[in-house]
Amino acid sequence: MRLAIDAMGNDAGPPPIVEGVRLFLERDDSGATVVLVGREEVLRPVLADAGLEGHERVEIVHATQVMEMHEKVAHLREKRDSSIIRLVGEVKEGRADAMVALGNTAAAIGATCLGLGFLKPLHRAGIAVPVPTREGHPCVVIDMGANTCAKPRHLRDYAVMASVYSRRVLHTGDAPRVGLLNVGEEAGKGNKSLREAYELLQQAPVNFVGNVEGGDIYNGACEVVVCDGFTGNTILKASEELASTVAAWLREAYGASWVTKIGALLSRRAFRILKKRISYAEYGGAPLLGVDGVCIIGHGRSSPDAVYNALRVAGESVHVGLNGLIRSELVTLAAGSPVGSAA
Amino acid sequence: MRLAIDAMGNDAGPPPIVEGVRLFLERDDSGATVVLVGREEVLRPVLADAGLEGHERVEIVHATQVMEMHEKVAHLREKRDSSIIRLVGEVKEGRADAMVALGNTAAAIGATCLGLGFLKPLHRAGIAVPVPTREGHPCVVIDMGANTCAKPRHLRDYAVMASVYSRRVLHTGDAPRVGLLNVGEEAGKGNKSLREAYELLQQAPVNFVGNVEGGDIYNGACEVVVCDGFTGNTILKASEELASTVAAWLREAYGASWVTKIGALLSRRAFRILKKRISYAEYGGAPLLGVDGVCIIGHGRSSPDAVYNALRVAGESVHVGLNGLIRSELVTLAAGSPVGSAA
Repeated sequence: MRLAIDAMGNDAGPPPIVEGVRLFLERDDSGATVVLVGREEVLRPVLADAGLEGHERVEIVHATQVMEMHEKVAHLREKRDSSIIRLVGEVKEGRADAMVALGNTAAAIGATCLGLGFLKPLHRAGIAVPVPTREGHPCVVIDMGANTCAKPRHLRDYAVMASVYSRRVLHTGDAPRVGLLNVGEEAGKGNKSLREAYELLQQAPVNFVGNVEGGDIYNGACEVVVCDGFTGNTILKASEELASTVAAWLREAYGASWVTKIGALLSRRAFRILKKRISYAEYGGAPLLGVDGVCIIGHGRSSPDAVYNALRVAGESVHVGLNGLIRSELVTLAAGSPVGSAA
Repeated sequence: MRLAIDAMGNDAGPPPIVEGVRLFLERDDSGATVVLVGREEVLRPVLADAGLEGHERVEIVHATQVMEMHEKVAHLREKRDSSIIRLVGEVKEGRADAMVALGNTAAAIGATCLGLGFLKPLHRAGIAVPVPTREGHPCVVIDMGANTCAKPRHLRDYAVMASVYSRRVLHTGDAPRVGLLNVGEEAGKGNKSLREAYELLQQAPVNFVGNVEGGDIYNGACEVVVCDGFTGNTILKASEELASTVAAWLREAYGASWVTKIGALLSRRAFRILKKRISYAEYGGAPLLGVDGVCIIGHGRSSPDAVYNALRVAGESVHVGLNGLIRSELVTLAAGSPVGSAA
């Protein structure tokens, strides 16, 4: 198995990515090769520092350009030799089984959708972000912003794909519960588009539990929550900031007195446990579901652990044949209620 | 000043509300009278228990019916003598200066909009929820779900109203920063409706700082974040659940060993500080801005402290003449760019 990764897609440069690759090589026993895509002259010394120079499971694919964080998708046209375009090329031309895109998310989505195309009969992809829940199991929120709007059938397709992902890669059991994000639980809530999506989801080959509210993302009520990309993006960004704000407040509160400072010292193990539970890194990057190839999207601020997890999830997705499974669900769906016909 | 409150609108019955009223009478020095609306035979003994029987600043307005939490807005028709309808009547007929609605939020909004009507030239209202930020100042998110959709001019009107509220009731300075919730900061992000809202906000009499992302609600980047009610509702419900999930994890993590248990004991002061910062109760209920009367919406699970704060915010809104100030901003707006003309 060959997993390709954008080695230039980190705010702090290649070192955290290379460190994540080292962790992966150390922990993974599938024998997968990691293909680092980026500037060879930059990557060589970083690999040497990490003791990975000449490693039999590491290769470099040279790319002279980098899509910077602030650059718009349209700039891809002038960056034909950027690491993200080369990364997509590795999968497209069959030299890699999966890709891990880090950094400029909009550019990564644009390059991947354009380069790999979609699983038939789809015409769009959705980012599936697993978040931790009170009950311990992850909940996949889809779409986190690949498309800001979503028609009813897109929401239904997201549900089908994320269910397969939840079941086979996140191991959440045979029938992950799928909720439709809404402003109330009763059927009939929300606008016309959501009411149509509700009906499509009832007929879809998923364990649809009806409308759910924002709180149900975290309370363990479902394994999959479906929403449009605008809502998913704003909720997840708000959540991420809220979690880190609470952590910052906790640190401040512990500085209040000597007693609380000693309390903090004795609490270190508890903090470690908490951090592990909150950490999105735990679950690895977010798959871009619907494209014709395995693509995991990671943060531009990914820690080595997050990079490791993204590679692990990429490998596991290839191993279980994620896209083949999704494709067969889409065929089932097409047989039952023609995709694209109902809405 | 007379402040009316729905005394039946709590999942745990009237006691937490009456306790909140007691706190208000104890702490408030405006001399305001609190009018409890609900079943007299239920309220009398609760007032007696709280030592408020015959209190000179407490009155009861009898209402025989209650809108239960699960009942739909349409049921208001059969509940002419419900506490929420009577509550609105108190303000409408000038017997109270402000109302605090607790419990069934959808019914409260429906009854209030129908009963009080809107501040001219508006045709809708928005729920403004103040949330705590990393920087300490509150950030008002509007709309939290009075209307699931919003046209560009509605978003603009929300911004104008919430700015006045932030400035005059939350005391956030002369020019609260207003952000438009979007999936990226660059102008031109989002759909047509958001781009139009962006333009309207640039011309509005508010300190518009441009598009903001979900994280900017909590990181202290603005004092007001404007969004449609679907987005606001799902984000705030997700945030509320996430905060309480993190707290639950922290409790669990502290149970991990004797060391962490002692750590927890020594950390109690830090927890109190943290809880105070997180607590939405701190800021009181959320005003329904745009209706022709002061209306504060509270949770059906409001603690006595939250009830106290809702009454305090209601009193302060009356004291500063909130709706008069909003009305004059709307006049300014109408003079500059006619309300309702641009979108």
